[in-house]
Amino acid sequence: MFSESEILIYAIPEKDSDALYYSKFWAMDAVLMFSKNKKKIAVLHPLEFGRAKEEGDFDEVLNLSILREKAKTKFGSGSNAEVIALLAEKYKISSFSVPSSFPSHLFKELEKYKISLKIKKAPFFSERKIKEKKEIELIRSGNQASEKGLQKVKEILQATKVNKQGFLLFEDEVLNSEYLHREIRKTTAHYGASLCDPIVAGGKQGANPHCIGSGALRANELIIVDIFPRMANSGYHGDLTRTFLRGTASKNQIKLMKTLKKAHGRALDNLCCGVSGKKIDKIIRDSFEEDGFLTGEKEGKHFGCFCGIGHGLGLDVHEQPFLGKDSENLKAGMVITIEPGLYYPEADSARIEDVVLITETGWQALNNFSYEWQIPF
Amino acid sequence: MFSESEILIYAIPEKDSDALYYSKFWAMDAVLMFSKNKKKIAVLHPLEFGRAKEEGDFDEVLNLSILREKAKTKFGSGSNAEVIALLAEKYKISSFSVPSSFPSHLFKELEKYKISLKIKKAPFFSERKIKEKKEIELIRSGNQASEKGLQKVKEILQATKVNKQGFLLFEDEVLNSEYLHREIRKTTAHYGASLCDPIVAGGKQGANPHCIGSGALRANELIIVDIFPRMANSGYHGDLTRTFLRGTASKNQIKLMKTLKKAHGRALDNLCCGVSGKKIDKIIRDSFEEDGFLTGEKEGKHFGCFCGIGHGLGLDVHEQPFLGKDSENLKAGMVITIEPGLYYPEADSARIEDVVLITETGWQALNNFSYEWQIPF
Repeated sequence: MFSESEILIYAIPEKDSDALYYSKFWAMDAVLMFSKNKKKIAVLHPLEFGRAKEEGDFDEVLNLSILREKAKTKFGSGSNAEVIALLAEKYKISSFSVPSSFPSHLFKELEKYKISLKIKKAPFFSERKIKEKKEIELIRSGNQASEKGLQKVKEILQATKVNKQGFLLFEDEVLNSEYLHREIRKTTAHYGASLCDPIVAGGKQGANPHCIGSGALRANELIIVDIFPRMANSGYHGDLTRTFLRGTASKNQIKLMKTLKKAHGRALDNLCCGVSGKKIDKIIRDSFEEDGFLTGEKEGKHFGCFCGIGHGLGLDVHEQPFLGKDSENLKAGMVITIEPGLYYPEADSARIEDVVLITETGWQALNNFSYEWQIPF
Repeated sequence: MFSESEILIYAIPEKDSDALYYSKFWAMDAVLMFSKNKKKIAVLHPLEFGRAKEEGDFDEVLNLSILREKAKTKFGSGSNAEVIALLAEKYKISSFSVPSSFPSHLFKELEKYKISLKIKKAPFFSERKIKEKKEIELIRSGNQASEKGLQKVKEILQATKVNKQGFLLFEDEVLNSEYLHREIRKTTAHYGASLCDPIVAGGKQGANPHCIGSGALRANELIIVDIFPRMANSGYHGDLTRTFLRGTASKNQIKLMKTLKKAHGRALDNLCCGVSGKKIDKIIRDSFEEDGFLTGEKEGKHFGCFCGIGHGLGLDVHEQPFLGKDSENLKAGMVITIEPGLYYPEADSARIEDVVLITETGWQALNNFSYEWQIPF
C-alpha cells in the first residue's frame, strides 16, 4: 500500500534546525532524509555514510552513490530529484510533506514525477515548541555560557578607568565593543559554545536592537549586552541580555531601568500555562506606557518598544512561539525569552532578557543572573 | 518597460551565503531582497530597517510593515508572496531569477501571480568563485586563526606525558578531543572567529573524514586536526588541516605521511591557472596508488582516498569549485583547499590541508604552517 504525507527534507543540518531536529546528525553538507511509517531514512554519500550510521538518529542509511547509479539507469541523469523518485517507488510513497524552506529546484523537478509534495507551513515539527527534558538541560547550559559571558563583561567594566574624553580604559587601552565581543566569545567557547555573535552596544548604538555594537565605549552610558551562543554538537542556544552602566547613571537612565524591571516583573507575575503570548506582550507594553515610555515613529525612526518582547528558544535563537505575534496560548514545556526593551535614538536604550520554562503550575527560570546594572567608580 | 530576470532572494544572511554575499548584511532572520536594473533593494521589518540602511549594501531599503498593509488591502492577506507581487508591479518586473534554495512555499504561492520565477542552478552568483582582494584578505585572516589553533594543539601535545594505558596526559588529566575542541575554539575566537567546529580525531576515528572526534587521545597514534573557523562579521572562513602524532611513529604511519606530502607536493607543482580540478584530483590519486595506498570498499566500508581532495573556500567552507567533481578549469582569483587524505578503518588515517589562491602565473599560499607532525617524547 502506498503511504501518504511521509516527511521529506533536503537541507544542511548545521544550518537548518528542522533537519537537525529530525536527524540529530551534525553535518555541514545537505542531507536527503525521509520517513516511511515513522522510520527515519537518510540517503548519504559514502563519505558520510558510516558517520550517519554511528552518529545520526536514523533507522536506515542508504548509499547515495548506488542510488544515483540506479536513478541514472532508470531516468537518465542520476539527479537528486531522480533519486527521490526512485525511492518513492521503492518505498511505495505517493506523497511527501515538505517544509516551507524545501528548495524550489527540487520542488519543481519533482513535479515531473507522480509525487505530490505538500508544503507544510512553519513550524514543520510543531513538537519543537514543547521541549523535552534533555533539550531543557541543553538550553540551560547555553544560558550558563551566556551568564559566564555577562560575568566577564561585568568584571572588565569593574576594572575600567575613564579618560578625559569620557571613554572607558581597560588595562590602559580604550575599551571598545570589539574587545568585549572577543572576550565573550572566548568565555562562551570555554563553557561549550561553538558559535557566538554577541551584542555589545553602547549609548546611541543600543537604539538599534540588533546592532552588535562597535567602537569605543563611554562611561555613564547604558551598554546593552546580549549573548546568545549556540552550544557545540547539540546546536541548542542560550539567550540572555543585561544592560550595564559604568559610572554614574542619569535620572532618565535610572527611570528607564526601573521601568524595564517593573514590566519584566509584571510579565513574570502573569506568566503561566494557558496564558497567551499576546497578553504577556500587552502587559509589558501597558506597563511601559503607564511609566511614560511611549512607542512610535518620528521622521522614519522608530522609538520605544518596537521589538518583540519574547520568543521561543531552542535550536533556533528565534523560534515559535513569538509572543505578541502568535495567538496561541503558552503550554507547559515551552521555553521562551522574556525581553522587555526600550529604544530611543535620541535618548537612552536598554533591554533585559531572561529565559523561562513554562510549567503546569507557572514557570521556572532557566538562568540566574543578577539585575544589578550600575557599576560606579 | 518591464525588466526580466531581476534577482529575488528570501533567506537568512547569517545562514545563506548567497544572501550574505549579495547584501553584506549580517542578519539572523530572513530578509527579502531583489534587484531592479542592478540596484539592490531590501524589504525589512521596522526592527531591522535602520540597521539595514547603515550596515547593508543596499541602494534602497523599503519598510515591510507598510508594504504588508498595502498588499493586504490589494490582495487580502499581506503575505510575503503578496508583498513580492506588489513590488513586481511597482517596479515593473515580470520575471525573477531565484537561487535553487529559494523556499518552495514562496515559489508555489507566487505561481498565483503573473510573475515568472526562473530557478538558477548553483552557483547563483558565479562571481563568488573569483575572490576580490578584500575577500582574499578575509580568508587569509581565517587561516591565521586556524594556524593559531593548530599551534595551540601542538603546544598542548608537546606538554603531554603518557600513562600506563598509553593515553596522553596533559596537566595530569587524560587529554581528550573535547578538551582540544574547546582550546581551539577559544584560540580561534581570540583571533577573530565567531564560529568554530573543529575536528580532532585520533586513531581509528580519523578514518571517518568528517568525524569531529571524541574521547581520550593516545600516544603513538595519528591525530587529524582540521580547523575551519568562520570569521566574525564577514562570514569568511579559514580551513587548514594538520595531522600530529605524540610519541613514536610506526613504519606505516611514516610511509602514510610521506605519501600524503608527496601527493600534496605534486598537486602544488601542477597547480596553475587553466588546469582542471579533475587533473589535480587525478595527480593526487595516482600518486597514492603509486605508493601502494589503494582506494576501495570492503564489506560496505570505504578505504583509501574516498574524500574530495580540494574545494573552493569563502563564505561557505565547501563551495565551488569542487576539485574532482567540477570539470571547469581553475581561474586566477579562485581560492581552493588542497587536502589529500588517506583513510583506513583497519589501519592509519591522515590528512593535510592548505589554502591557495590561483594566480595568473601559478598560485600563492594563503597560509603558512609547518608540516612537522612527529612530536617525540
